[in-house]
Amino acid sequence: MALIVQKFGGTSVGNPERIRNVARRVLETQNAGHSVVVVVSAMSGVTDGLIKLAKEVSPHPTEREMDVLLATGEQTTIALTAMAINAMGGKAVSLTGAQAGIITSGVHTKAKIANLEPHEVRRFLDGGFACIVAGFQGQTEEGFITTLGRGGSDLTAIAIAAAVQADLCEIYTDVDGVYTCDPRIVPDARKIDVIAYDELLEMASSGSKVMQSRSVEFAKKFRVPFEVRSSFNSNRGTIVKEESIGLENVVVRGISIERRQAKVTITRVPDNPGTASRIFTALAAAHVIIDVIVQNVSVSGSTDISFTLGADELEKLGPVIDRVAAEIGAGEVIKKGGIAKLSVVGIGMRSHSGVAATLFECLGNGGVNIQMISTSEIKIAVIIDEDLIEHAARLAHAAFGLEKSS
Amino acid sequence: MALIVQKFGGTSVGNPERIRNVARRVLETQNAGHSVVVVVSAMSGVTDGLIKLAKEVSPHPTEREMDVLLATGEQTTIALTAMAINAMGGKAVSLTGAQAGIITSGVHTKAKIANLEPHEVRRFLDGGFACIVAGFQGQTEEGFITTLGRGGSDLTAIAIAAAVQADLCEIYTDVDGVYTCDPRIVPDARKIDVIAYDELLEMASSGSKVMQSRSVEFAKKFRVPFEVRSSFNSNRGTIVKEESIGLENVVVRGISIERRQAKVTITRVPDNPGTASRIFTALAAAHVIIDVIVQNVSVSGSTDISFTLGADELEKLGPVIDRVAAEIGAGEVIKKGGIAKLSVVGIGMRSHSGVAATLFECLGNGGVNIQMISTSEIKIAVIIDEDLIEHAARLAHAAFGLEKSS
Repeated sequence: MALIVQKFGGTSVGNPERIRNVARRVLETQNAGHSVVVVVSAMSGVTDGLIKLAKEVSPHPTEREMDVLLATGEQTTIALTAMAINAMGGKAVSLTGAQAGIITSGVHTKAKIANLEPHEVRRFLDGGFACIVAGFQGQTEEGFITTLGRGGSDLTAIAIAAAVQADLCEIYTDVDGVYTCDPRIVPDARKIDVIAYDELLEMASSGSKVMQSRSVEFAKKFRVPFEVRSSFNSNRGTIVKEESIGLENVVVRGISIERRQAKVTITRVPDNPGTASRIFTALAAAHVIIDVIVQNVSVSGSTDISFTLGADELEKLGPVIDRVAAEIGAGEVIKKGGIAKLSVVGIGMRSHSGVAATLFECLGNGGVNIQMISTSEIKIAVIIDEDLIEHAARLAHAAFGLEKSS
Repeated sequence: MALIVQKFGGTSVGNPERIRNVARRVLETQNAGHSVVVVVSAMSGVTDGLIKLAKEVSPHPTEREMDVLLATGEQTTIALTAMAINAMGGKAVSLTGAQAGIITSGVHTKAKIANLEPHEVRRFLDGGFACIVAGFQGQTEEGFITTLGRGGSDLTAIAIAAAVQADLCEIYTDVDGVYTCDPRIVPDARKIDVIAYDELLEMASSGSKVMQSRSVEFAKKFRVPFEVRSSFNSNRGTIVKEESIGLENVVVRGISIERRQAKVTITRVPDNPGTASRIFTALAAAHVIIDVIVQNVSVSGSTDISFTLGADELEKLGPVIDRVAAEIGAGEVIKKGGIAKLSVVGIGMRSHSGVAATLFECLGNGGVNIQMISTSEIKIAVIIDEDLIEHAARLAHAAFGLEKSS
């Protein structure tokens, strides 16, 4: 007798047949004696269709109205899902984000959840109903419809799980869980059974986009354990939860890679207070998203500063970077694409030395030159040639023995 | 400086181009200095598409969920319409039925409006916005989405016009207004400038389906004048309002016809109290919808009772009518299709005699045999052969001089 939140994304509810599959899964969970809250996204393709419609009536659709429009996508899915469950002999009711008590800020198209008062959810659960809640949406205190931005349905599921104190939150998706590395690159990559929030966050920020970081951060903040699993089979997925001693015994949890990166080096940057700040303030003002920043110690009153960014960001740099380099009296600006990032992630890293040594050694022996190094408490990231990224991933995966069950 | 409610049906908002046309019309009204509330239906075809989806997940969709599903249709239109107005430099906001303060009974798929608290509508009007309200929908006191059934968007418009005390309520549709008769049948039929609620009700119940009767009754009850006009041109339409002395000066307002009728006669019905009741109670229990009922005086302890009904209703009669005829000891049951009803409508009829005489005379001279006659205070209806209905309509239209401007 547990209380379980199940979230199904757009692909999992992509057509009537798949909606009936979801209904069957919900019924099975109910029949096993559990209470169920289901969070669904819009059917795949629906949101894009609505955006297209909006563009046909307005080149720059009002954001408030965009939310009213897009919210119909999830509203359609909740009604259909509840109908499907009822048609199979179950008991289900649909609830919009507003009806489920999701109160948000008033920033349309990217609202933040401000409060959640799940009275209706509790009332229907007590009545033996499965509650089918529209993901991605809420309403302001004044009663206006808002949406939560990308990955918003995951956020809804985590938030509801927190509010109703669910025993488990299952995030159904089109992958089996989180892997030690991308199985298309490393054939013996293994599904991870349990991972800590921070590890998933580092994996996510390094390109393993199982979930948006904000949902993971929200789950971490409210200590909501969740499981990432496939809606197309019954395999157990990956449980994401708080750190524990057991989790720390594994030094490296997984390896993630990010392709299509670029690096920029500004040479002979004068070593004065505030110089770095002037560079990155100018870049932020130009809306350039920066990833890794590396600055070494100054040896003769000046130093080189390097940073990486997505290859697509490179053009936004435009004249900004040259202007600011000239203003601060630096040397030249060297831009280079064709690089990639490999990150080794694990909370056990904190209490173990030697991870960096193992990584650098295996890459060196394999002929992979390291161009930049950046570390956090639970991650070591290296920047290398993009051509070598798959080779490097396989080297590192083997060096840390990730193919073996932990 | 008037407050105007404008209602646009599904055809008028059937695609992005038409939605932009609606936006232009709203802007023109605003630019003329008026405040505007716009009520819109779902884009034509959308509701049918949603019903089809529902049928694919459930043979008998839950009515509560059907309302949640169908309400997305109007929600889509309000967002697109508001966007279109904003894109043209206007100021508009969308409001769902619930947000507009429409409180209904809890009878899903055919809820009745119980209350209307248009706080938000007033607030946005005061702020200079056009309010774009979703027709056809509301919410219960508990906050659950309901829909108002067929013709629900007209009802929304009339109800809002009443609640905000609008100066005018314009019902935009795909016809130019209410005609003295169907112009496809009577080429010199004329658009009626002004008509009384009761006249339109009699016309509507006699087959001129410009609007559902319930919306007209609602308008009559709350004394909301409205205008039926075309969304495809700028012609003035037909104003529907309370009776007035001016209106009574015209004896006959219009002629409406209803085809595909059938009549049933039960012969030799014993002339006892309660006999008619037993017949029509049995028919009501079988959900047979009856139109005209005629019973003449009894001459020898028994009488003949006749009634008409839609041709499609005939099969529902099935064995019910034979059984009840036997039970009451009546003679035979004679069923006959292929008939039609012609109604002459006008509130001036009350104070003028001779209307019946004129009608019967013109039909008789034209060779049209009258099979049944039924009258109300403001209507004379005759049942004739369906083959003769167009001929009869032209005869009556000419006999009452309806081609002339009143």
